[in-house]
Amino acid sequence: MAGNSIGQYFKVTTFGESHGPAIGGIIDGVPPGLSLNAQDIQFDLNRRRPGTSRYTSPRSEPDIVEILSGVFNEKTTGTSIGLIIKNIDQRSQDYEEIKNLYRPGHADYTYEKKYGLRDYRGGGRSSARETAIRVAAGAIAKKYLYKINKINIRAYLKQIGHIHCDFKDWIYVNNNPFFCPNPEQITELDLFIRNLKKLGNSVGAKVTIIAENLPIGLGEPVFDRLDADLAHALMSINAVKGIEIGDGFSAITKLGSEYRDEITSQGFQSNHSGGILGGISTGQPIIMHIAIKPTSSIKIPGKTVTNHNQETQIITTGRHDPCIGIRIIPIAEAMVAIILMDHILRFRAQCGDRKII
Amino acid sequence: MAGNSIGQYFKVTTFGESHGPAIGGIIDGVPPGLSLNAQDIQFDLNRRRPGTSRYTSPRSEPDIVEILSGVFNEKTTGTSIGLIIKNIDQRSQDYEEIKNLYRPGHADYTYEKKYGLRDYRGGGRSSARETAIRVAAGAIAKKYLYKINKINIRAYLKQIGHIHCDFKDWIYVNNNPFFCPNPEQITELDLFIRNLKKLGNSVGAKVTIIAENLPIGLGEPVFDRLDADLAHALMSINAVKGIEIGDGFSAITKLGSEYRDEITSQGFQSNHSGGILGGISTGQPIIMHIAIKPTSSIKIPGKTVTNHNQETQIITTGRHDPCIGIRIIPIAEAMVAIILMDHILRFRAQCGDRKII
Amino acid sequence: MAGNSIGQYFKVTTFGESHGPAIGGIIDGVPPGLSLNAQDIQFDLNRRRPGTSRYTSPRSEPDIVEILSGVFNEKTTGTSIGLIIKNIDQRSQDYEEIKNLYRPGHADYTYEKKYGLRDYRGGGRSSARETAIRVAAGAIAKKYLYKINKINIRAYLKQIGHIHCDFKDWIYVNNNPFFCPNPEQITELDLFIRNLKKLGNSVGAKVTIIAENLPIGLGEPVFDRLDADLAHALMSINAVKGIEIGDGFSAITKLGSEYRDEITSQGFQSNHSGGILGGISTGQPIIMHIAIKPTSSIKIPGKTVTNHNQETQIITTGRHDPCIGIRIIPIAEAMVAIILMDHILRFRAQCGDRKII
Amino acid sequence: MAGNSIGQYFKVTTFGESHGPAIGGIIDGVPPGLSLNAQDIQFDLNRRRPGTSRYTSPRSEPDIVEILSGVFNEKTTGTSIGLIIKNIDQRSQDYEEIKNLYRPGHADYTYEKKYGLRDYRGGGRSSARETAIRVAAGAIAKKYLYKINKINIRAYLKQIGHIHCDFKDWIYVNNNPFFCPNPEQITELDLFIRNLKKLGNSVGAKVTIIAENLPIGLGEPVFDRLDADLAHALMSINAVKGIEIGDGFSAITKLGSEYRDEITSQGFQSNHSGGILGGISTGQPIIMHIAIKPTSSIKIPGKTVTNHNQETQIITTGRHDPCIGIRIIPIAEAMVAIILMDHILRFRAQCGDRKII
Repeated sequence: MAGNSIGQYFKVTTFGESHGPAIGGIIDGVPPGLSLNAQDIQFDLNRRRPGTSRYTSPRSEPDIVEILSGVFNEKTTGTSIGLIIKNIDQRSQDYEEIKNLYRPGHADYTYEKKYGLRDYRGGGRSSARETAIRVAAGAIAKKYLYKINKINIRAYLKQIGHIHCDFKDWIYVNNNPFFCPNPEQITELDLFIRNLKKLGNSVGAKVTIIAENLPIGLGEPVFDRLDADLAHALMSINAVKGIEIGDGFSAITKLGSEYRDEITSQGFQSNHSGGILGGISTGQPIIMHIAIKPTSSIKIPGKTVTNHNQETQIITTGRHDPCIGIRIIPIAEAMVAIILMDHILRFRAQCGDRKII
Repeated sequence: MAGNSIGQYFKVTTFGESHGPAIGGIIDGVPPGLSLNAQDIQFDLNRRRPGTSRYTSPRSEPDIVEILSGVFNEKTTGTSIGLIIKNIDQRSQDYEEIKNLYRPGHADYTYEKKYGLRDYRGGGRSSARETAIRVAAGAIAKKYLYKINKINIRAYLKQIGHIHCDFKDWIYVNNNPFFCPNPEQITELDLFIRNLKKLGNSVGAKVTIIAENLPIGLGEPVFDRLDADLAHALMSINAVKGIEIGDGFSAITKLGSEYRDEITSQGFQSNHSGGILGGISTGQPIIMHIAIKPTSSIKIPGKTVTNHNQETQIITTGRHDPCIGIRIIPIAEAMVAIILMDHILRFRAQCGDRKII
Repeated sequence: MAGNSIGQYFKVTTFGESHGPAIGGIIDGVPPGLSLNAQDIQFDLNRRRPGTSRYTSPRSEPDIVEILSGVFNEKTTGTSIGLIIKNIDQRSQDYEEIKNLYRPGHADYTYEKKYGLRDYRGGGRSSARETAIRVAAGAIAKKYLYKINKINIRAYLKQIGHIHCDFKDWIYVNNNPFFCPNPEQITELDLFIRNLKKLGNSVGAKVTIIAENLPIGLGEPVFDRLDADLAHALMSINAVKGIEIGDGFSAITKLGSEYRDEITSQGFQSNHSGGILGGISTGQPIIMHIAIKPTSSIKIPGKTVTNHNQETQIITTGRHDPCIGIRIIPIAEAMVAIILMDHILRFRAQCGDRKII
Repeated sequence: MAGNSIGQYFKVTTFGESHGPAIGGIIDGVPPGLSLNAQDIQFDLNRRRPGTSRYTSPRSEPDIVEILSGVFNEKTTGTSIGLIIKNIDQRSQDYEEIKNLYRPGHADYTYEKKYGLRDYRGGGRSSARETAIRVAAGAIAKKYLYKINKINIRAYLKQIGHIHCDFKDWIYVNNNPFFCPNPEQITELDLFIRNLKKLGNSVGAKVTIIAENLPIGLGEPVFDRLDADLAHALMSINAVKGIEIGDGFSAITKLGSEYRDEITSQGFQSNHSGGILGGISTGQPIIMHIAIKPTSSIKIPGKTVTNHNQETQIITTGRHDPCIGIRIIPIAEAMVAIILMDHILRFRAQCGDRKII
């Protein structure tokens, strides 16, 4: 299949470039009868959108979503939901100068080689602008998941450069522009990012995503395992370069006797596996970590070539985030929500005669 | 879709349980005219199969593959290829005692809760036995990939417990039972694994996979990115709990000025991105690392419950690997080959009028 | 998969209801580098849109399409193409009275039973209004197909009620509101339809679609045969109840000696098979016929029930076509174009190393 | 996707050639807990297999199916079901002489042009032998469909050449080698077919398929409508050239006032629509008719060319059916069962929270 869709039963298909007239998507497979209006979606869009703090890109996009179909009298009808978000604050002239050269770390080179031409304005389709529709689709999934089983999907900033954020409580996460779960670390983060901006540099980050109140049984052996589908969805986010489920890479040095999650009549005694066994949810929280590379667009000159392979230098002057990892938090939640929603529907398809979920 | 298929244009569908009469698969989408016979596939199957060294499970399976269709006069015909491998050395009686209880760290619990019943013999469908067919499918993909562009996919043991294997040369990898790329570390590995076996314990591992000689342009934005599809495929392997592309988690602490891969007229000056930008191959080697959890079946008693939630203890007496990570090497290569093959065909579908690949 | 997509490599996904703010779609898999602007699409949209003659529904929709993405400097970029058409002339008040009852022959009953609720305004998603986006997608496919091989897809009115249209020449088809290939029959058709309107009744029709200049080799055995995919696409059009390829139902009474298409060094001597053998195109014209039921919405009172199963009568007062068959002509062409486009890409995927198409 | 799969939630993938060692398939998505053994499948296989009467091909294949996975203690486990049927009575030497020429009406020409080579033995993959696995998959679907709602899918011979079979009762259908629903017509059919064989000729046929006891609500607007999916499945059967749902082509001459199915408190008053409105099942019987072309392999000499375009003649000497339409009856039932099964699972996926089916 062409690559702009994700999910099989709950299917999200998107379109749109950074500097085109609009971005949008079609959400297919939403069960009928869900209460839904644009406000339900706007909350997460606002968490993602740029221009809301000094720590993110100053591009000012209101990101107002319109629901064009699939909802009647504020209830989903079971038909495909069309969504659109108009682009407002394009500054395409910022990009004229990169028209003929490849920004290091960006998709300019690969898009042009693959397709033979590219929309160079703001990275075109490769821009993270496209993720706004993912967040909108995720918001619909989140609403449904919460309705049926109080399934809850939340993420927070776990690390930025060498600063580890110590988890205190979820209540702090949405109350600071870093999505940091510890209010005492805000000052340190503020200093760090401001200094990065001053240096015109950027840094990587780590984000933790946790899904709770899941039913047992989500995930289809052997290829469409829940962990495999989550890995696919998370790795499809721009700038993500690593994924862990549960203990992840720290499992390498663990012994079987430490790692396996023993079971008593009270349930599992630990959750090293991160809530998934054999590709199927155990009912425990699903715990995921992702590694995000530093933003490639920085003010420090870098070597590159033109599309005629002439050597040159580049200094990014467009509007960018010093740490794209911060803004990935609502996107990561959305991607997890999309996959869990898909698997709820898949569970019902095959095991629906038992009428569990 | 039901979950036993992977790939969309090069599609692999499998069946089979650990202790059933046979496992098998259907490989769909192989281009016509490829020279192919069972020996081409057997080489990788032999690398994966158990019972070949003291470091792996003693289950003795010859793993002889039969090609049932899709090949005529030793050439692929373009029709679906049916493969079958008979199970020979089942010892189902070993599993009678786990019939009513859940082995910690295994899929027993999740399969039974999801499906309402389970084939408990050797883990049934959740057994790594199923991966033999993946290796067979991967061998076909590897042969085609090598034919068209000398594309080469190789993996080696990067770490086991606290022992890091220092890469010396590929020539060593297939000459020792650990797939270790350094002949001087074999003794240390031998001692370590023998000791683990003596203790009845197991340990995690890390495997590195590298694909070389790739064309530029593989990967479909925005969801079916090459990295996302690779993450899906690798995470679908039993026991894999983490995935990195390029620098992976070490990108968290890197600055943009260090990380972005600068370009000169000679090409990229580094490969922190691991050969993928914007989800599309750059033509550089694709570098992946995976984390593998310790085998859950160990001889040390562990707490568990029966399917009536009665507490009990379990000691695994079946035949198992002290470090499943060792045997994952040919499987990981196969999964990468399947995805690359799929994307070669996808590239041709959309960009085929340019007749590049 | 959810049901609002068609095609696998060239994939069309649509949204929108008859009386919502807009209808739209996403076209995924278009090869890069195709010259495209909105005018290329508008021609076929104008052939489909209502309100253009006294023989079709008077709903007045300009059906102006906007391209929101996937095209840069009037060339396709290889990314997904977002299309939108605003609804202008909704008269939802016409539908208040059918809110609680089921129009015979319409999808009111089945949508409400399936989904538990329905958008009753103009039939909601079940309205033929949705087909405007199919026509838009088909126009893109047609342009590409013509570019690569002068592939040409045309349809005409073959029969309406008892009036058979005798094929004279393609040049007449687009010059009359019936898409009739014979200018001498226009008066008869005009009288017939006007009389039907006077009676408040409707009638069925037969449409012929012919695709020419096809390469040999389109179609994937054994399930995604070209004829099977065409049957799927044509039967997915509202009101289509029968499909024939080549001789179709007249093959029942033919002998093998009459039917098989003999071959000489000049090629096939006949085309009873309609251009497809074993599910694969022969290079001859593909000939299809479809049967279209009479419009269900008529002015003659009909028995029906309310959603509380109370018996009542219905007289349709909305704006409708006396013969929906007439308007299906551009839609049928579009569906055939979508399938052929998909199969061109599929051919390239599997057989692309031979670089034929 | 590659073309050897059908269904999305209940997915059937097949492999195998007419003269290879075996044919087989993988059935994915079967709900767990269904009682199943090989005998359940064998009944329909026996209805399809050749060599059982003088009216069909004398090739003698016992068509014994083996279940290789997915069933444990005679219950389905929810994992993929592997099926295999060994080929026994190949006579490949019969085909040596057609190695270099194209049989008119067969897929020899299109396979060779598409793939650049072909397995000429018995038509290879294009042979109807492949349909045995469809019948096996359909038998599993039928068993499940009957279990959940007594859904019943049956077909009969409606017409052969100019002989119309008048429906008397279903009980007669399986009691004669023609699947004729009227015992008084057997003599006429016997004479007709015997005469055809004597002449070395063949003839077309029409088959009627009826599905009963369906729930309301199967079918996914707008592309995966139930009628569209049925059309796809039926047209994917070798030799099928036409499809009708309900009144089919006779709707062309009907008026809206005759055709629309009026509703009273007792339900629908007629079934011109064939049990499907807006692509969704109404709960009435689904009625389908298919047209089958005459067998192309006949003893009367026919013109053809070699693969070097040399003109020649062909007389088929292999073992063939004088009317392939007869043997299509169990295959058509199977294809309908596969689609209905798929849509039951799809209904549950999207509407499963209402726990209706």
